[in-house]
Order: sequence, then C-alpha cells, then structure tokens
Amino acid sequence: MTAYAPETPALVIDERVATANIARFQAHCDAAGLALRPHIKTHKLPHFARAQIAAGACGITVQKIGEAEVMADAGIADILLTYNILGVDKLARLAAVARRVERLAVVADSAVTVAGLGEAFSREDRPLTVLVECDTGAGRCGVQTPEAAAGLATTIAATDGLVFGGLMTYPAAGGSKDVESFMRAAKSLIETAGIACPTITSGGSPDMWKAGGETIVTEYRAGTYIYNDRSLVAGGACSLDDCALTVEATVVSTPTPTRAILDAGSKALSSDLLGLTGHGTILGHPDAAIVALSEEHAIVHTKRENEFEIGQRVSIVPNHACVVTNLFNFAWLIGEDGMMRRTEIAARGKLT
Amino acid sequence: MTAYAPETPALVIDERVATANIARFQAHCDAAGLALRPHIKTHKLPHFARAQIAAGACGITVQKIGEAEVMADAGIADILLTYNILGVDKLARLAAVARRVERLAVVADSAVTVAGLGEAFSREDRPLTVLVECDTGAGRCGVQTPEAAAGLATTIAATDGLVFGGLMTYPAAGGSKDVESFMRAAKSLIETAGIACPTITSGGSPDMWKAGGETIVTEYRAGTYIYNDRSLVAGGACSLDDCALTVEATVVSTPTPTRAILDAGSKALSSDLLGLTGHGTILGHPDAAIVALSEEHAIVHTKRENEFEIGQRVSIVPNHACVVTNLFNFAWLIGEDGMMRRTEIAARGKLT
Repeated sequence: MTAYAPETPALVIDERVATANIARFQAHCDAAGLALRPHIKTHKLPHFARAQIAAGACGITVQKIGEAEVMADAGIADILLTYNILGVDKLARLAAVARRVERLAVVADSAVTVAGLGEAFSREDRPLTVLVECDTGAGRCGVQTPEAAAGLATTIAATDGLVFGGLMTYPAAGGSKDVESFMRAAKSLIETAGIACPTITSGGSPDMWKAGGETIVTEYRAGTYIYNDRSLVAGGACSLDDCALTVEATVVSTPTPTRAILDAGSKALSSDLLGLTGHGTILGHPDAAIVALSEEHAIVHTKRENEFEIGQRVSIVPNHACVVTNLFNFAWLIGEDGMMRRTEIAARGKLT
Repeated sequence: MTAYAPETPALVIDERVATANIARFQAHCDAAGLALRPHIKTHKLPHFARAQIAAGACGITVQKIGEAEVMADAGIADILLTYNILGVDKLARLAAVARRVERLAVVADSAVTVAGLGEAFSREDRPLTVLVECDTGAGRCGVQTPEAAAGLATTIAATDGLVFGGLMTYPAAGGSKDVESFMRAAKSLIETAGIACPTITSGGSPDMWKAGGETIVTEYRAGTYIYNDRSLVAGGACSLDDCALTVEATVVSTPTPTRAILDAGSKALSSDLLGLTGHGTILGHPDAAIVALSEEHAIVHTKRENEFEIGQRVSIVPNHACVVTNLFNFAWLIGEDGMMRRTEIAARGKLT
C-alpha cells in the first residue's frame, strides 16, 4: 500500500474508503429527499468537511464552539451547533463565529438558554437561528413534550436577535417512530401558533440506512458513517471493508504462546465499548481478541499459538471511531495515489 | 476560592492537595526504606515532576519516549521508561534522550527487544541500563518465570552497549506475595550467575500504602497518588478531600426534575469505569449519579427534585485521573495563594 511505516500507535485513514462512504450515504439521503448535515466530530478535519459539502451536504454539524471556530477558519459556510450554549465567554465566541459564516444555527431546550442567546445576539447585525432540542426518547437533553417544544419556539420567535429555525432531536437507537409522533405534534402546534417550522433534523449513524421514507424529518445528521467502526459493523450498518479508520500498532511482547501485547492502549483506542465485547478487531486475525486495555497496552489473547511475533505491525478497527480521532494529534491519510500524508487533526481536543 | 471561572469543562488541580499527597506518600516510602519513582503519566507536567523530585523521589517513571523527551527538556535527570522499545525510529529517539539526561533506563522482556537496544546503544558513548520486566500475575508484559528473567538478565549483561539494571514488575492488584516469591527466586538465580541485581522495582497506587515491610522490592512506582481519584477513594486509599484533580462542569439542561445534563462527557471524563458504577462523583451532591456519558454530555439522575439549575457549576472527581489528564490541552492550577493559573499539559497526547 505504501512503503512508509509511521511510528505506532498511528491513526491511519484510508481516504478512498472514506470518499466512498461519503458518496454512498449522500446518495441515500438524496434518494430519500433528506438534506444531509454531517457531524464533523468523527473526523474533526476541515479536509473532510469540505469533501462532504462538495458531495452534496447542506452544511455541517458541530458540538462545540471550538469546532465551529476551526470549521469557520476553513471556510465552511453553514454550521449547526447542536448544544445549549451558556455563559458570557461562550456567547461572545458564538457571536464572533456567527459574524464569519453565512449561517450559524444552535439549539436550545430551555428559556434560560434562549434568554442568554437573545441577550448576546440582540446586539448583532444578523439574528441567530435557534432550533428547539426535543427529547424523543434518548433521555439526554431536550424538551419533554410537543407542547413544551411549541412553547419554547414561541419564546424564540418573540426574542429580539433570534429566529426560530425548527426542531432537532438525537433519537434513541431504533426510536424513529417516537421521533415521527413527537415532531408531527410539535410542528402542528408551532404552525398553529403562526410560526414557520422549516427544519426538522434528526440523526445518528446506527440507524442511518433507515432514514427516509414516510417521514416528517427534513434533515439527517450523521457522523460515524464517513469512517465507520466496529460498533457499526456489529450493528450491520457496514462491513469491515467499509471501515476507513484503523489504528496501526506494533506487537511489543509475546509473553506466552497465546498472549500478545500491542502498543495501543486506551490512550489510542479509548475505553468505549458501545455494548461490545473486546476493544477492537485486529484485521486478518479474526480469532484474536483484545481482551483488556491499559493506557499504553492492549492485551491480546489468541486461540492459535504463536499467531503474532514481536515487531509485527497490525491494523485495528476500533469500537468507536469518533473518540479515537480525539486521542491523536495527527492522522496519516492514505490518498487516492496510495501515498500517506500527515494531517493535523485541527478540531481535536476542542472541549469548549 | 478564586474569582475566576474558566470556561467549562475545565481541568482544575488544587496544588495544595497535590503537594500534601506528594509529601505523604514520600514520607511513607522514606519510612519503609523504599526509593519512590513517581509515574508522571498521571500529571504529565514538568512542574509536578520537579516537585516530586524536590520532595525526595529518586527519579521519575515514564511510559513513552515522547514523555521522556518532555521531561528531559524540563531538566529531569533520572528517567525509567517502563516499556519495550522497538523499531529504528524509536531507538534513535531513545538514544537521543539518553545523551541528554544523567541516567536513562528501560525495560525489556524479550531477546528481540534486547537485541534492538544493543544495536542502538553499541554506537553510544554511555551504555543503556536495561531492567527485565517480569509478569508476576498481572497478565500483561513480562517474562513468565524467574528462570526466564535470569536468562534475559544474562543476555543483557553480555550485550555490548547495555548494562543490566535489575527487575521490574507491574503487579496484579493485591499481588504483592507473588511479587516477593518471583523476585526472590529471580534475584538469586541472577546473582548466582555472577551478575549484580541492584534494583527491584514494583508499583501501583491502589496498593501503595502496603508498600514496604519485609520486602525484596527496593523501589516503588506510583502515579495516581499525586491527584488521587474516585477509584482510589472506592478502594480506601484516600478520601474525597485528598483528590486534587476535578473536572469543573456546567449544568446545561434540566430536562426533567430528576435529570440534569452537564457539559463534561467522555471527551472530558473518559469512559474508564475501573470496576465502578457511574462516571464520577459530583462534589456536594452525594446522591446524584452520573449514569451515562456521551462524548460531550454527562447524564445525571437525582433522587431529590430540582437539585440542579441550568448554569450552575459543579466539580466532578473522575473515576480515573490519569486518562482525564490526557484529554485536556491545559489545566488550571490553584496555587498556595488560592489563585488559578493556566498550565499547558506538556506531556499530553504523547502516543509514541
């Protein structure tokens, strides 16, 4: 593939696979009549945000102002920040980003958040678009009822500096039926109040291939689909061949014939299990199991004796791609020409 | 404490607590006649490495060459790197660090690792000290028997460019008896072969207060003791008041009277459970449980209704301090004067 072997553990992205993944889900959304708004938390790279938009995405989703700042720097024009933004420091940063892009939207699920946004944007030339976050069963953020959604939409529409943009939810796995009933009721109440509800945005990679059909949803947010990972393979959303992100590691010890130690621990693979057993799939070694991680070691148990030798390099498909991306300062991108190039992960570690 | 409220999530270190923790365990090791060699993976800060040495530590432990490079830059003179180092790139970096410090030692558990170290250091002016890593029950790296330890010690002693430095183990929790029997047998075989075995180094914070007594161990490595964390509180090694590291977070949503959402998810607290239930202790809220994390959210369930309000700031003692340190680019140190100062985490993200 390439003659260059980076020091391990290394984050390696096969751009050819990522490009195919972008195209495949964009085609699915196009056919379903859904706008696609990729979540950049998976790749955290301006390079891929631009590629997603070039492929037809309507804009991007981010979770942090720091991510929005990086993507604004990269010239991304349409950003949805799916988080309640609170506090004078963050509101000032939010307003500064809004001045630099064509369209910035955020979400809110409380009057407190809306009041803060209004205070910050009443001083701006352009209003901020605010969507109401709805809890359709995931049990995280969001208003609890369609009535509460309509009430908050009315508050947003009446707040100087703000424009109501629609409804947003992060659904529970398999919860699309709940999304439909909640959103239909909320939209109806909002429109009855004389307020337009242009966007209804839902998301999640695990259920991405079910997106579309008879739905009130207008926009779909997915992140992991660009790289895929072991959790999506386990859930049937893709195959191992569709996984663009791998962690390259080296066997540093073979203490027993059926135990090998890799130099990729939780600092490289993360401790995320996502309901799976084991900490990743070692490509080409289907019977080898990563049974435990410490910070700098993966402990591998094998059925076959002497399956690995010290110094051998292996590629691991991690359980959860997004959190792995956040652990590496840079990635090695394998381009169309098969060559590797080192790319800083510009939006890594953006905690605020 | 301080008037300044940093944007959340924020990593906050109370230096007064850390300083007391350093002094307390140093006194324990001094009384036990053990050299203390703190593992810097917990703090990743030259500032605290210097403080540990000033308090009486014999040197430091690191797990990665990148960590050794940062600590050499900071003037730390005595570094033990407890990892099998393999590959031309890493061996060249290892040799470069060795030239810059008074004493660098590494470990090896195979003839392959020893051969690589010998090849790299046969060209150097000063030999490299190599300890044999022993598996005394933890099931990670390490030779499996005292005989194998003695065999590898003999190989090291016979290799140009290397000096045998002793034996190293990372014991299983509660496995000090296994450490004693393995190390006594190995040391005896090595000395019978006419080779000195000056250092026997063991470690781990969970069992730190049992270190000492009738033991063949000469040196103890501990990392977490400087900050402590929820896992050590649960294990009885310290109290919550002894925890120097907290993650400061903001309540961003209260979707129901018994649910609150914090802006610190797995990207701030990590997914490490270490056998615990829940993802951290919220100080002052003993009945509130962090029941789930997504990357940017903590989901808190409370017994009491309306325990939290939107915008409220909370301090969380995380399950595992070391992995949290690796997630933040910088920390806020609260000094003796009660003032906060921002400190880059110089050895964060050193994966190689």
